Amino acid sequence: MKQIAIVDVGSNTAKLIALAYEPGRRWRQLDELRAVVRLSEGLEAGGALQRKPFARGLAALRTFASYARAAGVDDLVATTTSAVRDASNGADFVAAAQAIGVDLRVLGGEEEARTGALAVANGLGVRDAVTLDLGGGSFQLVELRERRWHRGGSWPLGAVRATDRFLHGDPPKGKSLRALVEATRAAVDPWFAAGGPVGTFVGVGGTLRNLANVHQKRVGYPLDLLHGYRLPAADLAALATELAGMTTAQRAAVAGLNRDRADIIAAGATVIAAVVASAGVPEVVVSGQGLREGLFYPYLLPDAPDHLLDDVRTFSVLNLMRQYHDDPAHNGHVRALALTLFDALAGVHGLGPAERELLGHAAWIHDVGMAVDYYRHEHHGLMLTLGRALPGFDHREQVLLALLVRYHRKGTPSVDGFEALLAPGDLARLTTLAGMLRLAEYLERGKAQRVTGVDVELDGDEVRVLARSEGDVHVEVEAASLRRDLLAAALGRRVTVLGRDEVDP
Amino acid sequence: MKQIAIVDVGSNTAKLIALAYEPGRRWRQLDELRAVVRLSEGLEAGGALQRKPFARGLAALRTFASYARAAGVDDLVATTTSAVRDASNGADFVAAAQAIGVDLRVLGGEEEARTGALAVANGLGVRDAVTLDLGGGSFQLVELRERRWHRGGSWPLGAVRATDRFLHGDPPKGKSLRALVEATRAAVDPWFAAGGPVGTFVGVGGTLRNLANVHQKRVGYPLDLLHGYRLPAADLAALATELAGMTTAQRAAVAGLNRDRADIIAAGATVIAAVVASAGVPEVVVSGQGLREGLFYPYLLPDAPDHLLDDVRTFSVLNLMRQYHDDPAHNGHVRALALTLFDALAGVHGLGPAERELLGHAAWIHDVGMAVDYYRHEHHGLMLTLGRALPGFDHREQVLLALLVRYHRKGTPSVDGFEALLAPGDLARLTTLAGMLRLAEYLERGKAQRVTGVDVELDGDEVRVLARSEGDVHVEVEAASLRRDLLAAALGRRVTVLGRDEVDP
Repeated sequence: MKQIAIVDVGSNTAKLIALAYEPGRRWRQLDELRAVVRLSEGLEAGGALQRKPFARGLAALRTFASYARAAGVDDLVATTTSAVRDASNGADFVAAAQAIGVDLRVLGGEEEARTGALAVANGLGVRDAVTLDLGGGSFQLVELRERRWHRGGSWPLGAVRATDRFLHGDPPKGKSLRALVEATRAAVDPWFAAGGPVGTFVGVGGTLRNLANVHQKRVGYPLDLLHGYRLPAADLAALATELAGMTTAQRAAVAGLNRDRADIIAAGATVIAAVVASAGVPEVVVSGQGLREGLFYPYLLPDAPDHLLDDVRTFSVLNLMRQYHDDPAHNGHVRALALTLFDALAGVHGLGPAERELLGHAAWIHDVGMAVDYYRHEHHGLMLTLGRALPGFDHREQVLLALLVRYHRKGTPSVDGFEALLAPGDLARLTTLAGMLRLAEYLERGKAQRVTGVDVELDGDEVRVLARSEGDVHVEVEAASLRRDLLAAALGRRVTVLGRDEVDP
Repeated sequence: MKQIAIVDVGSNTAKLIALAYEPGRRWRQLDELRAVVRLSEGLEAGGALQRKPFARGLAALRTFASYARAAGVDDLVATTTSAVRDASNGADFVAAAQAIGVDLRVLGGEEEARTGALAVANGLGVRDAVTLDLGGGSFQLVELRERRWHRGGSWPLGAVRATDRFLHGDPPKGKSLRALVEATRAAVDPWFAAGGPVGTFVGVGGTLRNLANVHQKRVGYPLDLLHGYRLPAADLAALATELAGMTTAQRAAVAGLNRDRADIIAAGATVIAAVVASAGVPEVVVSGQGLREGLFYPYLLPDAPDHLLDDVRTFSVLNLMRQYHDDPAHNGHVRALALTLFDALAGVHGLGPAERELLGHAAWIHDVGMAVDYYRHEHHGLMLTLGRALPGFDHREQVLLALLVRYHRKGTPSVDGFEALLAPGDLARLTTLAGMLRLAEYLERGKAQRVTGVDVELDGDEVRVLARSEGDVHVEVEAASLRRDLLAAALGRRVTVLGRDEVDP
C-alpha cells in the first residue's frame, strides 16, 4: 500500500488526511489532523491576509509537514484556495510555506471547482448534477454532465467571509441577513437561469455537513452517516432562519452543531439556503467527499479516463471487501452461486435487476465481519457495512446490503429500526435475497469451491437444487439442506438440496 | 499462519473448531461446526453404543472430515472420550471412523483430564485450582498445583448419562433427583476429603456455560462474556433446583437456555451443584476453554515446558494486538513513554504495580480499533477488547483495559454501564492512567518514535514533561500539549509539555 497526505488550507479550517491506497484497487483513511485557522479573518476584498491568520495558517502547515515527515508518506499534496488566492500578499504566504519545506499549490477557482466535481462524481456516482461547495472564503457551483465538469462559478461568499462582510450584531440584524440573501441571489440567479433544469443537487463542505448533522439528530435518523443524506430544502431553509435568529452562544448549544462553527454558521446556512432557493430543488444530497478526495483520485486512478471510476458501486463494495475480508475466491463463488439461483428462480420470486445487483454486491461482502471475529460475524458485518459511506449506494440500498450481510448465515430477517429508510416490500425482498444468499453460502461451506455450480429444477411446489461437483461435497449439501428453510418460506415452496450424484442414474 | 481443525466427538455434542495460528505468537478461531450426536443415548454401563447414536456420530465425523479436506487444514486432530471409551463396541466405532479416513483417538480418563487442565492453566492463568469438566458422558475433576495437573478423577455421570440412568418423569421425580445427588456425593466426597483446601474452583463444559448464560441474563450482566464469569454457588444451587422442578418444555422456554439441552440440563445442573456443594466453595469460575483448546496448545506452544504459556496476560494482550493492529514499534513506544510517565509521577498519583501493569497492557492494544476504521477507533477498540475472552484477566480488569483503549485519545473517562463490575476508586484510577496513556500517545503522534524519551520535572504544583529527541518533534509536542488537560485534572497539577531544546540553554 502507498501512503499519501493531502492538505487543504481553507479559509476556515486547515486539514490533513492521510490515506493508504493501492492504485486502481482500494484505499482507506489512516489519520486526520485539523486546525481552525480562520485564514480570511479580517480580509478585505483585494486586501492582505492579516498577521494573526497568516501565522495560524503557517503554524498549521508546519505541523502537517512535520507529521508527514514522521509518518513517511510517499506524497504530500498541499493546496490552498480562495483566501490565499484572493489576498494581495498570497505570494508571501506561498513563499513562507516554501521556507518551511511545503510546496503549496494555490488552486484557481475553476481548478478548485473541477477538483470538487471529481470527488462528487466518484463519491456519489451521480451523472448529471449541480454541486454547491461552500467553504470559509468562497463557494463554488459546478454543473456536472455525464459525470464531468460542464460549467462552474466561484463567488467570495464563504461562511467566514460572508460573516465578516455582511452580518452585524449578535444575533445578526435582520437587515444584514437580508442583504446577504440579496447578494447571494444576485450572484447565482443568473447562473441558474443560464443552465437547464437542475438534476440532483449536491452539497459539499463543513457548513452543510454540520446542518445535516443537526437535522439528523432532530429527526432521529437511524444511521450515523452523512454522505448521501438527503436534506429537504424546506427543512434547510427553516434551520437557516432558526440559526440566524440566535446568538452565537445559543447556536453553540444546538445539538449536533460544531462549536467551532457557532459564529459563522448563521451566514453559511443563510447563503446555502439562498442558493438552494435559487436552484428551486426539493432537497440537497450531502457529499462527505470534497476537495481533498478530488485531489486524491488522480493518485488512486492514474490510468482511468479523467480519473473517473468505471463503476462506483462495484468499486465501493470491492473496497469494503478488500479492507476486511479479502477472500475473492470464496466471496466470488458465493456470488456466482447466488446469482445462478436468482436467475433460475426468476419466475418464482419475480424480482428484477435492481435486486439481482444488490444480491451480487452483498455476496462480495458477506464475510467482512470476520475481520472482527468469527463469532457473531454476521452482526459485525452489519456494523462494518453501515459504518462508513458506501459511494454510489443510497442509504436504503446500503441498509439492505447490511441486512443481507446480517442474515447471510442465520436468523429470521427483520428490518427493525430501519423502517424509516426502507420502501414497501423491502422486508419481503430482503427475505428472498437472504434465502438465496444463505443457500449459496452453505453450498460453499468448505470455502473450497467444491460445488462447481447448481442446477435448479422446478417441479410443482418443489424447488430442487442440484449441486454439481467433481468429488466430495457432503458437507456442502448437508449444510445447505439444514439452511434451506428461509428460502422455502420466502418462496412458499419446498426446497430440497441434493448432490448431482444423488439423482443421476 | 498454519491452520488446524480440532474435533471432539463428545457424548452429547460433536464439535469441530478451525483455528489459524502462528506457533508461539498468536491464534484466532476461523470456523466452528457442531452436531448434536447424543452418542451415549441408551448406553448401559459396560454395554454397546446403540445403532442410531453410532450412525449419528459417524455422520458428524464424515462431515467434519469433508470440511477439513475442503478447508485444507494442515492438521486434523480428532478425539473422542467417555462414550466410546466405555462402550463395548468402541473399537468398532474407531474402525468405522478409520474407514472414512478419520484417525480417531480415544482419550483415556486421565489424559482427558490432563488435557482439560492444560486449557484451564493457559486459558484462565490460574495456578492452584480444582477444575470440574462435565460433558455428556462423564465428568472429570482435576486438582492443579502450580498450573500443572496434580491429581484427577473421572466419573460416568455426564448430563446425558445421568439423565438416562437416574431421572424418571417429566418433571423428574424428587426421588430420582435425590438418588442422583447421593450418587454424585458418594463419588466426589472422598475425592475432596483426600485433598487440601480447594483454591479457585473452575467449571468447564456446555452445561455450565449454559447455566452461566441463564444467570447473566437474570442479573443483567453488562458483558457478553462467559469465560471468567463468577457464578455464585448459592445461585447455582437455586438454579439447579428450579430447572429440576420443570418439565423439558418449560426448561426450553427459559431465557438463555439452549433448547438442545433442555432435556438433559436438569441432570447436568444437579450433578454440578452437588459437586460444588461437596467442594464447599463460594463460587464457580467459568472457563470457555476446555478439551479442544487443551488439544491445541501443544501445536501453539511446541517448545514451551509442558506447553504452558510463560505469561498468560501478556500473551492475551499481544494476541489481541497482533490480530487487529500489529504495529509493535508504535504500540511499544507508546507503552515505554506511558510507563516512564507512570514511574516519574509515582509520588504524585500514588498508584501501584497493578495499575502500572494495566497501563502497559493497554498501551499495546490502544489502537486495535483501527482494524475497523480510523474514525471513532477508540470506540471500536472498546468493542474489540470486550468482544472475546482475554485469558488471564478478570472481568473488572478487562473492562478497565477496554476503557483505557476507549479514552486513549479523546473524551472524559466514564464508567457508565460497567459500575457493577468495578471497584471503588476505579474511575479515578482510569482517569489517571488514561491521562498518562493519552500524553504518551500524542508524544507519538507521528508514529515514528521521534520523541526518544521523556524527562519529568516536578516544580511546586507544576509537572513539566520534557520531550527528548534528535530532531523535529514539533507535531508531537504540540499535540501532547493540546491533550494534557486530562492528566492535569487527574493529578490536580498544571502540566506543561516542552521539547528538550526549548528549555536547554
